[in-house]
Amino acid sequence: MGEESLRSPVVLKFGGSSLATPDRVRLVAGRIAERHRQGDAVVAVVSAQGDTTDELLERLHELAPDPPAREVDMLLATGEQQSAALVAAALSALGVQAVSLTGWQAGIATDPSHRRARIHGIAPQRIRRLLASGHVVVVAGFQGLSDAGDVTTLGRGGSDLTAVALAASLGGTCEIYSDVDGVYTADPRIVPDARRLPAIGYDEMMELAALGAQVLQGRAVEYAWQHDVEVHARSTFAEGPGTSVRHAQATERVQPVTGAALDRSVARVLCERVPDRPGIAAQLFGALAKAAINVDVIVQSPSHEGRTDIAFTVADDDAVAAEEIAHAAVEGIGGGHVSRDADVAKVSLVGAGMLSRPGVASRAFQALAGAGINIIAITTSEIKISCLVRREEAEAGLRALHKAFGLGGD
Amino acid sequence: MGEESLRSPVVLKFGGSSLATPDRVRLVAGRIAERHRQGDAVVAVVSAQGDTTDELLERLHELAPDPPAREVDMLLATGEQQSAALVAAALSALGVQAVSLTGWQAGIATDPSHRRARIHGIAPQRIRRLLASGHVVVVAGFQGLSDAGDVTTLGRGGSDLTAVALAASLGGTCEIYSDVDGVYTADPRIVPDARRLPAIGYDEMMELAALGAQVLQGRAVEYAWQHDVEVHARSTFAEGPGTSVRHAQATERVQPVTGAALDRSVARVLCERVPDRPGIAAQLFGALAKAAINVDVIVQSPSHEGRTDIAFTVADDDAVAAEEIAHAAVEGIGGGHVSRDADVAKVSLVGAGMLSRPGVASRAFQALAGAGINIIAITTSEIKISCLVRREEAEAGLRALHKAFGLGGD
Repeated sequence: MGEESLRSPVVLKFGGSSLATPDRVRLVAGRIAERHRQGDAVVAVVSAQGDTTDELLERLHELAPDPPAREVDMLLATGEQQSAALVAAALSALGVQAVSLTGWQAGIATDPSHRRARIHGIAPQRIRRLLASGHVVVVAGFQGLSDAGDVTTLGRGGSDLTAVALAASLGGTCEIYSDVDGVYTADPRIVPDARRLPAIGYDEMMELAALGAQVLQGRAVEYAWQHDVEVHARSTFAEGPGTSVRHAQATERVQPVTGAALDRSVARVLCERVPDRPGIAAQLFGALAKAAINVDVIVQSPSHEGRTDIAFTVADDDAVAAEEIAHAAVEGIGGGHVSRDADVAKVSLVGAGMLSRPGVASRAFQALAGAGINIIAITTSEIKISCLVRREEAEAGLRALHKAFGLGGD
Repeated sequence: MGEESLRSPVVLKFGGSSLATPDRVRLVAGRIAERHRQGDAVVAVVSAQGDTTDELLERLHELAPDPPAREVDMLLATGEQQSAALVAAALSALGVQAVSLTGWQAGIATDPSHRRARIHGIAPQRIRRLLASGHVVVVAGFQGLSDAGDVTTLGRGGSDLTAVALAASLGGTCEIYSDVDGVYTADPRIVPDARRLPAIGYDEMMELAALGAQVLQGRAVEYAWQHDVEVHARSTFAEGPGTSVRHAQATERVQPVTGAALDRSVARVLCERVPDRPGIAAQLFGALAKAAINVDVIVQSPSHEGRTDIAFTVADDDAVAAEEIAHAAVEGIGGGHVSRDADVAKVSLVGAGMLSRPGVASRAFQALAGAGINIIAITTSEIKISCLVRREEAEAGLRALHKAFGLGGD
C-alpha cells in the first residue's frame, strides 16, 4: 500500500443509469466515500442522471428543430453539472468533504467542435490542490471549454473520455462504473454462456466499442491507449474485479478470438445497375464523406452489361441521409436504382490473436453456414471480421460464432 | 431615434413564469426578436423556467438535508443556464443570431457569499463584442462567479439584479418583464380599483418590494438607485407602458401616499412577563441579529411589577427559529413566557410624500378604526407606515387604507 502521500489518484466514473434515482446517487456516494476512507485520493466523474440528456434534447427540439450546436452544448452540460452537485452534496451528507467542478473548473480545454469536441489539454492544478487538502473532487463529465470560452461537449459517452483524460493528467488509474460488471465475450442477454473477460487489450476494446459494446466509449479507450492509462470496467451494483483494459502481451493471446459482438443499428443502402465507369465509387463515397457519414461494409458486384451494383452499410441514424446522397450521386453519373434496407445486422468477431492465425475467417463462415445463416456481405480488419446478415438471424449467428470459437464458459 | 450605432443597449429580463412552457419561451423569443429588428442592441436576462428552482432544491434535500451552500449554487445555476440556451435556440429558430452566456461568461463577479452573493464587478467586454457584431445576448440570470472560481447565486429574485447590474455596466436601460403589467397602488386581486402607477420613485419601490410586492426584487431596485439605472416593469403577455422606476422629483409627489401593501408572510413572537432590566432588549435582539433574523415591528409594553411584555414580528420562515432564540434569551435573563402567533398580517402605506405632510398616520389609524379593524402594533419609517392586524382582517384593512387615501381609479 505504501505511504498515503505516495498514492496516485484514482478516477472513478459513474454513468447515468448508476445515478438515475436518489437511492442510486446515495449508493454511488457510499462507494466513493469508502474509497476515500481507505486513503485513496479520489476524483469522481459523473454523467447526467438517467435520461436527462434525452429529455433536455426533446425540450430543445420542440423550440428549435435545428438548434445551433453551441446552444445544444450549453444546455446539455447542465445535466452533468447537476449530477456533480448532487453527488458532492450526498458525499457531504456522509461526512466527506467534497467539491463539485464543471468541466471548465476542472481545467478541461477542448477544440471548438461543438457536440464532438476533442480534449486538447488539461490544467489539473485546481483538482490537485483540492485532493491535497483532503477533498473528494466530483467532476461533471462530458464537457469542457473551448479557447473562445464556450462550453463544449465531448459526444455520447464523453464522460468516459473525461475520466480517462483526468487520470492521464493526474498520473492515476481509471475505473469506469456502469450497470454491467465488465466486458464479456458477447452480450450475455443473447449468449447465455458468455464469459466476463478479466483483461482485454486496448486494440480489441476499441473494435468492440465501435461494434456497439456499450461498456466503454471508443474514444476514451483510444485516449487511454495513447496515454498509457490503465482502465477498469466495473459494476456500480456488485463487487468484483471487472475487466482490465490495458496493453496486452502477445504471449497472452492464446485464443485467436477474444469476443463476439452484434450491432443491430445498421442499415444497408443499395445502388443497383449504376454505370460501371472509373471513379464512380470515389464520387459516391466522396459525397458521403463530405456529409460526415461513416460507411462500413462495402460490396461492389462484378459488372454486367456495363452496369454494376454497389451496396454499403451505414449507421441507422444516417440511413435516410445516405440514401438521399446516394440517389443524387447516382443521378449525376447516369442513373440507376437506389434503395434502403433496414432489415440487416452485423455480427463480428474481434481478437488481436487473428493477426498471427490464418483460417479464422473461414471458420467463422463455416459456423454461420452450419447454422443455416446467409452472409450478405463481409468486411475485415486486422483484428476483426464482420458479417452482414438478416436481422432476424443475427442472434443465432452471434451464438454460432461464440460457440465455434469456444468463447463460452467451461 | 438617431443613428443605430448611437443606441444604448436595452436589457430585457424575463421571469420564470414568463418562460414556464414552450409556448411562452416562443413568445419571449418573439418579443426579443421584435426589439432586435427595431434596431435595439438587446441583452436578455432569463430566470429558470417555472418551478425549476424549487424542484432542484427538492431533489437536493432528498439527498442532503443540509447541503453545502456552494453545492446548492452549483445546482441551482443550471436552471438559468438551461433557460438561456433554450431562449437563444428559440431566437435562432426565428432567424436571429443569438448567443447564451452563463453568469461567469457574462463577466459577473461576486463576493463568495453563496446563495446571497453580492455583485462586486462586471466585465462586459464579451457582451459588448457580441452586441457589436449584431448578436442578441441571452444571459443566465441569478448567478455569478466568486474570485475563487466558484459559481455563486444572488438570492431569490436575483435575476432582476443581474439585469439591472448589466444595464448599469453597459450604460443602458432595463425592462423587467413578468406576468403583471407594472406596479399598482395595491394588489388588484385584493383591491379591485387599484391603479397601475405610471412611475414610482426608487425609494418607494424599495419599501414596496420589502413589503412583499413581487414585481421587482428590492436589492435590484437599490442597485438601480445607486447606479442611476432607469427600470421599467412591464408585462410579458400584454402591451402597455408599465411602470417606470426612477428618481422622483419632489414636485411630482402631489399625493402623500403612493401605494398600499399587504404582507401575510409575517409572524409575531411574544415574550411575556420578562424582567424589566436595562439591556434586556439588547440581549434579545442581539441574539436574533446573530442568527441573521430580521426583526420588524417591535412593541414593548409599560413595565408592571418589575416585569414587561416584548413583542416583535419576523418573516414566517424565521418564526420557529426566532421563538427558540427568544426562549433561550428569556431563560438567560430570569424567565418569562414565550409564544408565537402566526395569525397576523401587515398592512402598509408607502409614499415619499409623507415626509412633508403630517397627519398621514392618524388618517390611516382612523381609516382602520372606521372599518372596525383593531391595530395590534405599529411601525413607521420616513416614507412608510405599517400596521399589524389580525390576518382575517388584513384584506379589509388594505381596502380601507386604499380608499382613505384616494389611491383608486376615478
